[in-house]
Amino acid sequence: MAELSEKAGLPVATIKYYLREGLLPPGERTSPNQAKYGEGHVQRIKLIRALMEVGGLSLATVGEVLAAVDAGEASPHHILGIAQQSITPPRQVADDEAREWALATVRDLTERRGWPCKDDDLVIQALVGVLCTIREVGHGWYLDHLDDYAEIADRTAELDFEAIAGIESLEQIIEIAVVETLLGDRLLSVLRRLAQQRASKAYFAREG
Amino acid sequence: MAELSEKAGLPVATIKYYLREGLLPPGERTSPNQAKYGEGHVQRIKLIRALMEVGGLSLATVGEVLAAVDAGEASPHHILGIAQQSITPPRQVADDEAREWALATVRDLTERRGWPCKDDDLVIQALVGVLCTIREVGHGWYLDHLDDYAEIADRTAELDFEAIAGIESLEQIIEIAVVETLLGDRLLSVLRRLAQQRASKAYFAREG
Repeated sequence: MAELSEKAGLPVATIKYYLREGLLPPGERTSPNQAKYGEGHVQRIKLIRALMEVGGLSLATVGEVLAAVDAGEASPHHILGIAQQSITPPRQVADDEAREWALATVRDLTERRGWPCKDDDLVIQALVGVLCTIREVGHGWYLDHLDDYAEIADRTAELDFEAIAGIESLEQIIEIAVVETLLGDRLLSVLRRLAQQRASKAYFAREG
Repeated sequence: MAELSEKAGLPVATIKYYLREGLLPPGERTSPNQAKYGEGHVQRIKLIRALMEVGGLSLATVGEVLAAVDAGEASPHHILGIAQQSITPPRQVADDEAREWALATVRDLTERRGWPCKDDDLVIQALVGVLCTIREVGHGWYLDHLDDYAEIADRTAELDFEAIAGIESLEQIIEIAVVETLLGDRLLSVLRRLAQQRASKAYFAREG
């Protein structure tokens, strides 16, 4: 247990808490007060921390993601989808007309790009919400250039998946996907601002 | 005033509030209880709303951005920079060693990309913060692929600037830049998740 604590970089009390809550499977008992923990435990702890600390997920939601991992029935793609849903904040759209318009726009876009589009997908609902806000503030230019931004998203997602190439452990794949999706959002948002600074300088130098 | 309220889609009380706070210049008085407001007023109101409602800026900060616009001394590039700083959340990094490492990484990256890099720039500080978090959670792959994500950021920024091509009004340029930077972050984050769903399907189909 002390060794696991060191490897995972977590206090023993936290590990005991994960064990009590059933997030972490018990170690293999070798004597009345000794248990053996393997590499699987270290990876599982990393995944729990990623979901809770970087993803801000509740203990209950972390439990659901881990249950899907442990059930072992679903494909990695399906389980990755569950994890992704759990780190997508839901958005409510009040206006029926706006929602219908946005949903139609999303259906067209996803069809053009060969992207999946299930109405109950939280990501689809989030996109519907963002599109409604963009229309509300009257920025039609954006709506005319959705495909250009989608192209950038495709390039980003391809790059994202290079990070998990060759990794076998499902726990590790999910951990990387969750962390890189969330921290990647922040990283890209900041990099974009720096790139805008250069673009701004070039733009106004041209315009005079 | 009633006409301005309709054009801007805002209640008269809110417009009066903006006038009282000095965010909006007074109209041209045409009689003791009548004033004329022009297209400039409509644009100014749109900018105030973008900064406050989409950007979540305080009244005081909105005042600072508008003061820079009104001073008319600085270049559009400089004023856009002030607006951008105001919508970049600051990040604190506690550890000196980590901050030094991240700052050196940022200096190298910005030099390679020809991006500006001033230590007191809030965007630079935000990037330092994100890099420290990424290192903390042990995702070295990301740090090795900063240039790939920076490339994506450059492409995004170029696209962003197409939205303001040909627009003359500084107020309108800033409004578009603020709204598209903030809503664009959200849009790209959601589009990326959809693109990941497709990438995931393709990846696991290949891996079997």
